[in-house]
Amino acid sequence: MASNGKAAAVAYAAQHQQAHLEELIEFLKIPSVSTQPQRRYEVQQAAEWLAQAMEEAGLEHTRVIETAGHPLVYGDWLHAGDDAPTVLVYGHYDVQPAEPEDKWRTAPFVPHVEGDFLIARGVSDDKGQVYIHVKAVQAYLQGAGRLPLNIKFIVEGEEEIGGANLSEFVPLHQELLEADVAVISDSSMMGPDQPSIVYGLRGLCYMLLDVSGPDHDIHSGSFGGGIDNPINVLCHIIARLKDEDGHILIPGFYDDVLALDEEERDLLAAVAVDEDKVLETTGAPALWGEPEYSLLERLGARPTLDVNGIVGGYTGAGAKTIIPAAAHAKVSMRLVSDQDPQKIARLFEAYVMELAPPTVNVSITPQGLASPSINDYTPTAVAAASVAYREVFGNAPVMRREGGSIPVVGDLQKHLGLGTVMMGFGLPDDRIHSPNERFYVPNFFQGIETIIRFMDEYARRYEAQPE
Amino acid sequence: MASNGKAAAVAYAAQHQQAHLEELIEFLKIPSVSTQPQRRYEVQQAAEWLAQAMEEAGLEHTRVIETAGHPLVYGDWLHAGDDAPTVLVYGHYDVQPAEPEDKWRTAPFVPHVEGDFLIARGVSDDKGQVYIHVKAVQAYLQGAGRLPLNIKFIVEGEEEIGGANLSEFVPLHQELLEADVAVISDSSMMGPDQPSIVYGLRGLCYMLLDVSGPDHDIHSGSFGGGIDNPINVLCHIIARLKDEDGHILIPGFYDDVLALDEEERDLLAAVAVDEDKVLETTGAPALWGEPEYSLLERLGARPTLDVNGIVGGYTGAGAKTIIPAAAHAKVSMRLVSDQDPQKIARLFEAYVMELAPPTVNVSITPQGLASPSINDYTPTAVAAASVAYREVFGNAPVMRREGGSIPVVGDLQKHLGLGTVMMGFGLPDDRIHSPNERFYVPNFFQGIETIIRFMDEYARRYEAQPE
Repeated sequence: MASNGKAAAVAYAAQHQQAHLEELIEFLKIPSVSTQPQRRYEVQQAAEWLAQAMEEAGLEHTRVIETAGHPLVYGDWLHAGDDAPTVLVYGHYDVQPAEPEDKWRTAPFVPHVEGDFLIARGVSDDKGQVYIHVKAVQAYLQGAGRLPLNIKFIVEGEEEIGGANLSEFVPLHQELLEADVAVISDSSMMGPDQPSIVYGLRGLCYMLLDVSGPDHDIHSGSFGGGIDNPINVLCHIIARLKDEDGHILIPGFYDDVLALDEEERDLLAAVAVDEDKVLETTGAPALWGEPEYSLLERLGARPTLDVNGIVGGYTGAGAKTIIPAAAHAKVSMRLVSDQDPQKIARLFEAYVMELAPPTVNVSITPQGLASPSINDYTPTAVAAASVAYREVFGNAPVMRREGGSIPVVGDLQKHLGLGTVMMGFGLPDDRIHSPNERFYVPNFFQGIETIIRFMDEYARRYEAQPE
Repeated sequence: MASNGKAAAVAYAAQHQQAHLEELIEFLKIPSVSTQPQRRYEVQQAAEWLAQAMEEAGLEHTRVIETAGHPLVYGDWLHAGDDAPTVLVYGHYDVQPAEPEDKWRTAPFVPHVEGDFLIARGVSDDKGQVYIHVKAVQAYLQGAGRLPLNIKFIVEGEEEIGGANLSEFVPLHQELLEADVAVISDSSMMGPDQPSIVYGLRGLCYMLLDVSGPDHDIHSGSFGGGIDNPINVLCHIIARLKDEDGHILIPGFYDDVLALDEEERDLLAAVAVDEDKVLETTGAPALWGEPEYSLLERLGARPTLDVNGIVGGYTGAGAKTIIPAAAHAKVSMRLVSDQDPQKIARLFEAYVMELAPPTVNVSITPQGLASPSINDYTPTAVAAASVAYREVFGNAPVMRREGGSIPVVGDLQKHLGLGTVMMGFGLPDDRIHSPNERFYVPNFFQGIETIIRFMDEYARRYEAQPE
């Protein structure tokens, strides 16, 4: 009966592809940029739109849950019986800023189909991937009348800004979120035919660094040599955070980094990485990083530090000769197990304050913290995901670590003891966080089919071997 | 006869103060920001306005001289006879950008009188000070019917961007500019009662530094640790240009710096500098600079390096996690005799290119070069200026070096053998190059009287002792 349900669900999904794509386009039109205060209303609007779409898909108890920041969206379907497993689907409906908007070929919130790609901010990260799960549920319920397992959705609006409010919500609502496994589609495959399952994520520690000196921009001729320059000081501080080979210089920073064991190094070494493809995707002139680690190790299993933005003084056309009043940088560190973002924030602050000279004022504001995670192995769900991927894409997924951060994964592990299967449908050149973000449309449809097949396969395997 | 002329000129100036101030306000309304391409028309308009004002003041041969950039304004009055000296007055009608405009209490190009101050971009640097000379000539011609000496004006529109076109003009028009001494009012006094004559100026070497990496902003989680970051690289480069004590690290940079001899160190040490006043004027938390030199030495007699502006990556509200495609900085070096700005530009470029790693592309664009100068002593003109200052302000001027740059001074010295008396009427807290630039109105009127008295005194002394 489960397998018949699967076939009916797959057929339903195939028959409704155009409608599903058009709905996604509506979702993408809402500029739910969580980091920008002026987008607060649109973020709320996206939450309400999604709750409505989940209800129309057949999920129950759908609701928008207010928080101190942007709201959460919840929904469930719990009629599969006590012996069936329960899956918690997580995703996020917030998106990165579209800036620099002049680098987009089409407007970021006017979704545009170009060949096999749908172009819009947030289409791959993560609205398109969240919507795969919503449509898989709908196809199952419409095609088969019921789901083979129990399912809960928790979708947040603050993933791109550190997820602080969901992080507070999780320990306080353990019963609501209780499940056998969490499933997240917010990562990418290795290529169109090569799926991957992510078993390790980096955490994040995002800090704003502000240096101020004179109380207004002053003449660099009249005062140069006598008054210190906030931009020069900021550059000196940044240059001491990380050396030119990528080693972070903050004392104690590496204390809790788990060393890669031989087994894992072999596992990662077995994953084919096309370095030319990385260069082509990024357009960078060369690869870079800690020489003692492979590219895949550096991108997933090693912590990093990057300045994400910097500004100070005169940035208009031509020359202006000033010592500026202030300079500002946004510095983020990607963390790996078992680094604690709170501890890293304290180490960062102590070190920067030690570097700060008395000739300026330096202030530091934490802007987002997320724990790194290595997945507790959930063999039944991973096996089910593997089968589903192979049936749809023709190849079994490779296991890999991912360099990005999904804050909730560490929280689910810590508070609910929940392992997470990260089965994404993005591609490495989706340009997430960049201008012209896109999603490969065949993966949207194949993603829905993969999730349908995963639900069926997981329900059947769980009967024999619960997690 | 000359002295009677002086009294009549002083009387005329006193009777027309309000009219002179109102004319200056009209001049200030023209936003002649030379560095901004969108202000090209307004720069031209300011040149034409000034030529008209010079003609109305009684100067002859007034004209706007086109160049490859912004025009020059010329005018003269040459009827004092062959035995009388000729003074070349230099000034500039261009101004610094008004940005950041939101830091101004009143609009930068809507001049505003507040107590004893006139507030507007360019009022002290240098429109108000140029206009002092125009009005002194007018007062003399109207009051006395003739000037006691021959006078030429050359006023440029590119002082704030390095003065490249005047620098080319000078050697090609030696006869036009021929004179016994140049006089410039584009500097400041030590305080309202303490005039100063500047005998040394710093030069300038202004460089744009651009670092590019990936061809678009990329996800710092997906690529952090594998692709180099242009902002981090730029900060590493900047941190290696100058150490935290103010020593510039470019190899060869100090080779041509003239050491301060004991006599000059004593001369500078005799100038009273109120360090608290410098802190109050700038609002900086502390003084700073090469510990082995005094503040006045650091500000005038030592070269410096300052980053005037920096920008890269995401600078909006909140957090965005990217490795940016590019980062940009504006770096200027103040030079002292006998540093050659062309040579310094070459040393800078060679050093930065050596620091640039192969993981990014670095490019350098010179944006403005000016030679430093130490004045050839012109004892008669300096003595005349000293008398004029003492008669009006009650105190003889102190002799000092100034940290700013006036590119033409080096050119006049080099090509015409012309010494320059820099007798300014600004005050140290005029906030030139900063928001809320202002000029002390009594100094505008006293400046006119000082220049009238200088003309008289110089003509009389020159008969006895030509330069």
